[in-house]
Amino acid sequence: MNGLGKLIAQIEPVPESWIRRARARQDSLTKPPGSLGLLEKIASRVVAIQQCLTPNVEHKRILVFAADHGVVEEGVSPYPQEVTAQMVANFLRGGAAINAMARAAGAEVVVINIGVKHQIPPVEDGNPSIQFIDRPVRNGTRNFLREPALTADEAFAAIMMGAEIAMQSAAEGVGLIGLGEMGIGNTTASAAITAALTGSPSSAVTGRGTGADDEMLAKKQLVVAKALELHADRLSDPLGMLSAIGGLELAGLAGVCLGAAASRIPVVLDGFITTAAAAIAVAMCPAVADYLFAAHLSVERGHTILLERLRLQAMLNLEMRLGEGTGAAIAMKVVESAVRSFVEMATFDSAGVSGQDALNPKALN
Amino acid sequence: MNGLGKLIAQIEPVPESWIRRARARQDSLTKPPGSLGLLEKIASRVVAIQQCLTPNVEHKRILVFAADHGVVEEGVSPYPQEVTAQMVANFLRGGAAINAMARAAGAEVVVINIGVKHQIPPVEDGNPSIQFIDRPVRNGTRNFLREPALTADEAFAAIMMGAEIAMQSAAEGVGLIGLGEMGIGNTTASAAITAALTGSPSSAVTGRGTGADDEMLAKKQLVVAKALELHADRLSDPLGMLSAIGGLELAGLAGVCLGAAASRIPVVLDGFITTAAAAIAVAMCPAVADYLFAAHLSVERGHTILLERLRLQAMLNLEMRLGEGTGAAIAMKVVESAVRSFVEMATFDSAGVSGQDALNPKALN
Repeated sequence: MNGLGKLIAQIEPVPESWIRRARARQDSLTKPPGSLGLLEKIASRVVAIQQCLTPNVEHKRILVFAADHGVVEEGVSPYPQEVTAQMVANFLRGGAAINAMARAAGAEVVVINIGVKHQIPPVEDGNPSIQFIDRPVRNGTRNFLREPALTADEAFAAIMMGAEIAMQSAAEGVGLIGLGEMGIGNTTASAAITAALTGSPSSAVTGRGTGADDEMLAKKQLVVAKALELHADRLSDPLGMLSAIGGLELAGLAGVCLGAAASRIPVVLDGFITTAAAAIAVAMCPAVADYLFAAHLSVERGHTILLERLRLQAMLNLEMRLGEGTGAAIAMKVVESAVRSFVEMATFDSAGVSGQDALNPKALN
Repeated sequence: MNGLGKLIAQIEPVPESWIRRARARQDSLTKPPGSLGLLEKIASRVVAIQQCLTPNVEHKRILVFAADHGVVEEGVSPYPQEVTAQMVANFLRGGAAINAMARAAGAEVVVINIGVKHQIPPVEDGNPSIQFIDRPVRNGTRNFLREPALTADEAFAAIMMGAEIAMQSAAEGVGLIGLGEMGIGNTTASAAITAALTGSPSSAVTGRGTGADDEMLAKKQLVVAKALELHADRLSDPLGMLSAIGGLELAGLAGVCLGAAASRIPVVLDGFITTAAAAIAVAMCPAVADYLFAAHLSVERGHTILLERLRLQAMLNLEMRLGEGTGAAIAMKVVESAVRSFVEMATFDSAGVSGQDALNPKALN
């Protein structure tokens, strides 16, 4: 697993000097200083990531990792496990929410089968614009209420596949990566990861997922609590945690965060699951946080706790809880708007607008 | 002013039967019921506005009304009044934030001089894609700390111009209108309108605008309080209010809301000023509220109060306070994503995905 150390060694925090250069330009643009709020912070960070005062995020790609979870044996999801494979087929035909959202955002969709359990139904009428990477590390994880979900080798392989896909995207000129996922049972794994990373009790981080009723929710919270107890001595490092209670899509997404940071590409998270994966990557390498942007605040209860830990502020408040990368797709357009206004706006001088000196930014709230 | 009554008579609440039809389709789409949150509500409302299960909002247009305010004599803005005219020139050249945001959103920009005081600087290098309507009702309002800002005839003319522009947009096939504005001093007028409409004290609705310091903010709050006192007997009806303490861009934007509702076009608000204008339109005709969508929550303090009054929920939380339609531009893309996912997604049946019956939506939180 030397590969992981080598990958992490390539990741650097974004330079503060570029943030300062970006801010200086922000204050010369024809708007009251700071009046674009979070958009100015987003643009400044993209400048520092790309180390360029004319950053470009037009080439957008959403990476949707699909995998299954052995823990669904315990009855933690109202949907049958077959849905993961069926939804992958739906993605490939272009009929899912993420496809519509990606089209609206002008983003490519790449679907990665990194560990779906059931056969993906044949897709004769596949959408040629959607790339499919069919390389399952294994067909679903083991039930982590009985044994570790993955071996360390399996988790490592999934991480490196994610990193490789991110780096390949960089080589193909992608300027902005969005994270997406599909996997019946993956809010349970993400809740376990969140509890393990933050020390929060299982009830605070385990929500209804796709729609657990009260009884199923109680069972799910118990499953998470028991899993943490069972694997207590495996949770001290991020790879151990990912192997014991994680999932293949979570590992792949953590790998994307590492690979994107190593390639200096900004990454837009989606909801709870992708944020849990990103938090694992940040636990492996804290500098990764500099490359992450939070899209929306999910109604899934653990999400707020994770965003606070990562010190990320969500752009959207849409009460979404779908996943797939749907929130990321919308937020990628927000990032693009932030970047384009930074690059394309006139300055007070060039536009002949008075009053750049009328304001003392320090006086503002 | 019969024209206003005729216009209002054309506006109908959106039919509940279309909301129900939209919801029925939402629940057949390949996602857990309700999992797209606010996006589902947005799409359902657009369905009911267009009275069509395949609504289309691709043709997007942002209407940016510019005007000046006599009350700036009182020292309520850190920027000189010339900036309104200079920024109009900046819009026409394509160099302002709204131009960049509109390009990113794929929206047209129409700039309307409905009452700028100073000469618009000549624009030789104007952007041909930006339409300019140069029809000032008068060159800025009167100082409402001394006399009514507008006569009833002037306010009426500005409203009807806005309505006409909205109806012309409908005739040209526009499917979604965004509101924008520019006018040094217009947070003061909007604060006065908000206080008059909601009964809130001036300190609760008057914020820093483009960047008032503590001293200027205190003065601004005093100006608003005094204006409300001076015009107390003119504030009993919306047209009287708009004439006494409003502005020409506010009147034009209120007219857009009325004209768009009469033409069954959804309208995306921007921040505090456009929401104050929309609230005037709703005061004139409550059914207008059915056609409005809140883009973002501005940091300008009166905005929350107005959104609560209109029972609208903001999609974005970006700490913006720029205006121009910048928040509307971003949110129009969110509305488009909501509508496209509604129209383009596969159903459980058509995609062969299991589990539509796995969920009882009533059990969800």
